[in-house]
Amino acid sequence: MAKEIERKFLVRSDEWRTRAVSSAKLMQAYITVNEDRNVRVRLIDGTSARLTIKVGKSAMVRDEFEYEIPVQDAEELTSSAIGIVIEKVRHRVPIAGKTFEIDVYEGFYSGLVVAEVELESEEDHFERPSWLGEEVTGDRRYSNMMLATNDLASELIHGVSHQAL
Amino acid sequence: MAKEIERKFLVRSDEWRTRAVSSAKLMQAYITVNEDRNVRVRLIDGTSARLTIKVGKSAMVRDEFEYEIPVQDAEELTSSAIGIVIEKVRHRVPIAGKTFEIDVYEGFYSGLVVAEVELESEEDHFERPSWLGEEVTGDRRYSNMMLATNDLASELIHGVSHQAL
Repeated sequence: MAKEIERKFLVRSDEWRTRAVSSAKLMQAYITVNEDRNVRVRLIDGTSARLTIKVGKSAMVRDEFEYEIPVQDAEELTSSAIGIVIEKVRHRVPIAGKTFEIDVYEGFYSGLVVAEVELESEEDHFERPSWLGEEVTGDRRYSNMMLATNDLASELIHGVSHQAL
Repeated sequence: MAKEIERKFLVRSDEWRTRAVSSAKLMQAYITVNEDRNVRVRLIDGTSARLTIKVGKSAMVRDEFEYEIPVQDAEELTSSAIGIVIEKVRHRVPIAGKTFEIDVYEGFYSGLVVAEVELESEEDHFERPSWLGEEVTGDRRYSNMMLATNDLASELIHGVSHQAL
């Protein structure tokens, strides 16, 4: 089990692209969604897959359990998903000793771009690059779980993203 | 993913004990419980652990995905269980080419004994030993999920088991 401590931001511009060191196509779906826990399956570049259990109410710190699973299991589990399957390309961008993960959504949420940075502690400092926009840590509309399962979230996001991007 | 086809019975007597070929102490807990799916963690003899996802509404046939996980993860997940932790000793009893699994519950459900047999298909035939009691396949009170999470189930089971055992 790992403690996951992360902060989430909107993204102002494409300037991060020149510093991206890798990218992967992610398809992810939720198998169960409850108030304080969820189970997610993720296909990475169609060639590997992971099952992730997150437990905890805090948006910033949660217990996370992650296991490699067969790609075929992931495809079968995805067919039992609750809500929609989220598609995005995740780019890794190292900045001053931290790695930002920039998620560029495709499909239903095309136009939405979100950056996450993983921290050592809740007080951990990090450099804010100029392309980093408004912080949305804890804004449930931007959680992938909500994006996958909540129609209201999708309306709001689409409204916001057309203004912000 | 495996299809799980099984039938469940109460047990009339202890006669199966002389034919048991192995036994294991199981502790199991539910991480998520939904109408048509659940996620379970199981500790086996305290030395190995499995995470199991079951999807499907039928009591007799469900999709089952099972993964070996670290014992420490299982212990941590168990501490986030929904409902109570079920404790039982599972005995394996081969009868005419099929294996019956006899679960002898401990702790909260002490006194309850349930036999399950896994089948090739819903029509698959099997020999019924004399110690096999009333069939309870599909009786939700006897699902481990209900035993773990539903107080009403526990009351009913305790009522039934005192008469039947």
